[in-house]
Amino acid sequence: MSESSADVEGLVAGILDGEHRALARAITTIENREDGYRDLVSALHAHTGNAAVIGVTGSPGAGKSTLVDKLAKAYREAGLTVGVIAVDPSSPYSGGAVLGDRIRMASNVGDMDVFFRSMSARGQLGGLSTATADAITALDAFGKDRIIVETVGAGQNEVDVVRTADSVVVLVQPGSGDDVQMLKAGILEIGDVFVVNKADMDGAATTVTDLREMLHLDGAAGHHGHDTLEAEESDDGADTDDWDPPVLETVATEGTGVDALVDTLDDHYTYLRSTGELAQRERTRYAEEIRQLLRADAADLVETELDRHGGMEAVVDDVLSRETDPYTVADRILDPLAECVERRRE
Amino acid sequence: MSESSADVEGLVAGILDGEHRALARAITTIENREDGYRDLVSALHAHTGNAAVIGVTGSPGAGKSTLVDKLAKAYREAGLTVGVIAVDPSSPYSGGAVLGDRIRMASNVGDMDVFFRSMSARGQLGGLSTATADAITALDAFGKDRIIVETVGAGQNEVDVVRTADSVVVLVQPGSGDDVQMLKAGILEIGDVFVVNKADMDGAATTVTDLREMLHLDGAAGHHGHDTLEAEESDDGADTDDWDPPVLETVATEGTGVDALVDTLDDHYTYLRSTGELAQRERTRYAEEIRQLLRADAADLVETELDRHGGMEAVVDDVLSRETDPYTVADRILDPLAECVERRRE
Repeated sequence: MSESSADVEGLVAGILDGEHRALARAITTIENREDGYRDLVSALHAHTGNAAVIGVTGSPGAGKSTLVDKLAKAYREAGLTVGVIAVDPSSPYSGGAVLGDRIRMASNVGDMDVFFRSMSARGQLGGLSTATADAITALDAFGKDRIIVETVGAGQNEVDVVRTADSVVVLVQPGSGDDVQMLKAGILEIGDVFVVNKADMDGAATTVTDLREMLHLDGAAGHHGHDTLEAEESDDGADTDDWDPPVLETVATEGTGVDALVDTLDDHYTYLRSTGELAQRERTRYAEEIRQLLRADAADLVETELDRHGGMEAVVDDVLSRETDPYTVADRILDPLAECVERRRE
Repeated sequence: MSESSADVEGLVAGILDGEHRALARAITTIENREDGYRDLVSALHAHTGNAAVIGVTGSPGAGKSTLVDKLAKAYREAGLTVGVIAVDPSSPYSGGAVLGDRIRMASNVGDMDVFFRSMSARGQLGGLSTATADAITALDAFGKDRIIVETVGAGQNEVDVVRTADSVVVLVQPGSGDDVQMLKAGILEIGDVFVVNKADMDGAATTVTDLREMLHLDGAAGHHGHDTLEAEESDDGADTDDWDPPVLETVATEGTGVDALVDTLDDHYTYLRSTGELAQRERTRYAEEIRQLLRADAADLVETELDRHGGMEAVVDDVLSRETDPYTVADRILDPLAECVERRRE
């Protein structure tokens, strides 16, 4: 299952030495699932655990790219290094163009300590989440202080990708009727910080009010309230130390509100650390990643076994002719595997 | 993997003898995944292949139950036997009450040749589709001429359940703004026949027009046009023999339009048979069912192996302490299985 490739060691050494070229090459290897990517990610894992991961999602047109650029710039000015991963599950092969755009933007920031990279959807279900997690591993091992994962849209795939971040920022465009859509995609539940961008537009105030109402906030603006409020949406019980997701306002094109967002994200990270929630999120993230890998690998095994029985077409023929039935087919294919497992246990 | 239970033979014999009590007991065994359900479904499969399966879906309140009752009554009056499965994925344990209601309604129809049964969601992902397919197997083997699968709502789970039917009927309530919701759930793509129920309500005509527009119909009412229209939504190419989903109007409470629906469903079944689409749908249905079973069984195997390694908690601990990493964990758990497969091949 683990193929070795000649340059895994070289890539790891390059990344630990801070070479951006090695980092770029490693992420390409990861994104394309090239030979050796598993060994590469395995080797890098030991050097991770220092970056704060920020997920940014929201519907197209809400201004995510602009806000992420300004956020990266603010972190750089504070002396931190930043990696940005732009994830686009909907357009599998548009990666190149998007990457080109983002690299130009990166150069506006003035130096290569902001590392932009776009990831596109390859392979099957769950593949994008796994590939993104692996890219985060590479950026973390490289030593980036902040890693921003930005999604193009806000569909289910994208929600799955960002919800494993330490802090999830949900961007909303004023008066866009986004509210209902967001509820549908289950985005309200995953947001740690909400940002109404383009706050100088008509209807911004209404959107802020609507959002706060939906989040059961009592109108306290721009900060989370560690008070008597019950955070009913929170995942982790009714503790009064629960994080109440604040609703911020920004005008990303002018940089307005970006410093407040940086402060809020710092507060959230402090909260995560002090409550043990950070470790809990890390546990959940790794458990999901492992289960995802096991499922994908088991599916490969099953496919191999199915081929040994002539493939799906042949098997369906027998079911259609009533020579056999779906359950007997499943038993015939998987019983030998189950027996292997049994035998080894004895 | 296959447990035997004492009454499997008895249940099969009873079903083939036309005993409703055996049928009811069999479906309970299937729904609850009791010991022996796999052997039961395996044994029944050989006696299937004679029923036409009709899926009925649509948002809550559209009048599905009433229409299904009237449809069942119409089939009975035409001398056909009918089985009805009501599927409710959202409320796992409300089965009893729903079943009680439906059995009362069944008695209105006047005899037990309409067999009502509600299925609720048990177990994990895909379990409901599999259980519904198994219940269809039981009703088909029993000799029912028509099997109607009715969903409570129109979410993704419910779409997955009905889309394997031979004919899919989508119910729409006039002026309910259902249009957008339906598009979201991917329901427009799976409908073979659309029914605007409560056609005496305000806005019914508009809903019919809107639906026809969305389906790229040219305004021909109440029947499918085997003409020069390109059926862009169809799954199977641009053949002029393609089925153009018609939009019918009913007032289910008064039985209005039910006969036209029966005729349209007969037409659709004839179309499915004459074009070979029926066999194709059966192939797809069995392939999906087999893949679902293989996945579920493989997941069980993986879980067993994971337990042998101390369970997920222990494994995550090692990943968190950087002693190991997700890929190494996945390899350690699945490589032995992969080696088993290899060894048997030699």
